[in-house]
Amino acid sequence: MDAVLRDHFSLAASRARKINDSYAALWDRLERNATGGKRFRPRLVLAMHHAYGGADMNASACVGAAFELLHTALIVHDDVIDRDFTRRGLPNLSGSYRDIATTAGIPIPTAEHRGMSTAVIAGDLALAAVFQLVERAHLPAAVRGRVLEYVDEALFASAAGELADVDLSMAPGVPDLDQVVDMARLKTAVYTFETPLQAGAVVAGAPEADIEALGEFGRHIGIAYQAADDLLGLFGDERRTGKSVLGDLREGKSTIPIALAARTERWPEISAFLGKPDLSHNEAEHARGLMRSVGADAETRRLAQHHADAARAILRTLPSAVGENLDPLVAEALDRDR
Amino acid sequence: MDAVLRDHFSLAASRARKINDSYAALWDRLERNATGGKRFRPRLVLAMHHAYGGADMNASACVGAAFELLHTALIVHDDVIDRDFTRRGLPNLSGSYRDIATTAGIPIPTAEHRGMSTAVIAGDLALAAVFQLVERAHLPAAVRGRVLEYVDEALFASAAGELADVDLSMAPGVPDLDQVVDMARLKTAVYTFETPLQAGAVVAGAPEADIEALGEFGRHIGIAYQAADDLLGLFGDERRTGKSVLGDLREGKSTIPIALAARTERWPEISAFLGKPDLSHNEAEHARGLMRSVGADAETRRLAQHHADAARAILRTLPSAVGENLDPLVAEALDRDR
Repeated sequence: MDAVLRDHFSLAASRARKINDSYAALWDRLERNATGGKRFRPRLVLAMHHAYGGADMNASACVGAAFELLHTALIVHDDVIDRDFTRRGLPNLSGSYRDIATTAGIPIPTAEHRGMSTAVIAGDLALAAVFQLVERAHLPAAVRGRVLEYVDEALFASAAGELADVDLSMAPGVPDLDQVVDMARLKTAVYTFETPLQAGAVVAGAPEADIEALGEFGRHIGIAYQAADDLLGLFGDERRTGKSVLGDLREGKSTIPIALAARTERWPEISAFLGKPDLSHNEAEHARGLMRSVGADAETRRLAQHHADAARAILRTLPSAVGENLDPLVAEALDRDR
Repeated sequence: MDAVLRDHFSLAASRARKINDSYAALWDRLERNATGGKRFRPRLVLAMHHAYGGADMNASACVGAAFELLHTALIVHDDVIDRDFTRRGLPNLSGSYRDIATTAGIPIPTAEHRGMSTAVIAGDLALAAVFQLVERAHLPAAVRGRVLEYVDEALFASAAGELADVDLSMAPGVPDLDQVVDMARLKTAVYTFETPLQAGAVVAGAPEADIEALGEFGRHIGIAYQAADDLLGLFGDERRTGKSVLGDLREGKSTIPIALAARTERWPEISAFLGKPDLSHNEAEHARGLMRSVGADAETRRLAQHHADAARAILRTLPSAVGENLDPLVAEALDRDR
């Protein structure tokens, strides 16, 4: 899988170099963006391909790489939409290009726009690469068609989730649990859990009923993952997560614990702290205390547990090799502290 | 071709409706964006498919539709990069969403960002549809691989052109003719002329030498087209073009006539008028007079004529059916007043 991505980028960078250095540099930077992560999605593809006895290593590597680049494309464009210039404390693609421009003496608004413009272009290149990699898998027509349907479903859902996010930021109301869960599923879980699992299984020729069940499994794990992630964003250990526990509160983000708090009688007190861009550490600690007092943290953990149990129940209906291959990945997604 | 696009959008809109109305509305708006144009690129695909005796009408329609949606994706994202909210005097995709937000009482900077965010999402959906349409062509593997290479080349080049545009807007210097011509080729001509011609010919099974020659033909026509377009932007009749003849001057855009003027001794006088956001009609008329006095308009026409002649010379080496099918399209691209 690493070799497939490396080949793709080195070919693109050498073509780009024939045009100009700036274009070659963009490909280099995109490669660094695409190859730094935990490769969670390709690992799901490969795990399912292996569990179902798939033998086409090139195909599973290419499909895995395709899901990794879909992830890259989506986060690069998501950062444009959120006007974010960092990710996990480091400059993201927009941020690096903004910084190059400010260093060259360009004023900040123009430099930011330059960073975002470059990120729009880079995201498009990553998105197109998704389809080139599926083609490079040299799958039989029917299987390729199925894989493309999963890729399509992944993008279709995440675009819907992204749009819902934009709409909600324009017309915020009291966060509703079902809506928060649905949106997280669309924006993240479909392309992170459901479709990589299904695509890996399809490449290996898994039975239809199993592919169906893997989608359902992915849906439950996706919700459990989101709940765990939301808890870290509010109650996590900043030194371990590298993510401020002020961010979600200052942004007034509609997360699962917030939606659960919104159902309680102390919501008016809690909501007063949300969406304050200058929220202090003391205020945040007070808001967290209120959230705990209404049981929003415990309730979120219960919700995560419920969906993790449902996912494990589905796993027991599938061949044992599936569980053996998925268990460590599931544990990594859920029982994490960062 | 129209039916292929209609099918694609109606299927997507009905899937989107199951998610929510806002997503269905985005698909409707994207469809209106994708189906309003002159369909220049699909017509080139179909003309070449026909000229080379291609018989697979579904395939050529799907490949034509794919190039139309590539065009849609590129202009939607180009408008984000240029912070443009109108196209040909009407609100573009970003503009419609900005207007919806301002009508809802949202302040302009936030509303503009909302419009641009939605356009980032919509452009991604259009770009993914390009590849879905190539798949729907049900081509033999080798032909599909070739078509995907042309699609890739089209996007690869236009991303390079877009990046060069962004770079140039950050570090403007004296415009250089070769650079201006190269950038226009990358940003527009490759995906508008070269690759649609070649993809249509490949689907019909045209000889390799002819496909090569069509690329060369497209390159010359692309430059001639760009020269004609640049002349209209400076010296055109606004009532016919619907495009202000102030725009390119106010923006200080590096066009072919400007690059030609930069080679003359009156450049210091001319350049003083360029990039003034508040340039008046009188000043523009004065700048145009200077441009004419150094022969920048006549020289641009000569350059266009030279490349149109070179294109026609290539055409004479190709089967007569190619010329018969291309002549009206070439005339439309070159001998136009809007």
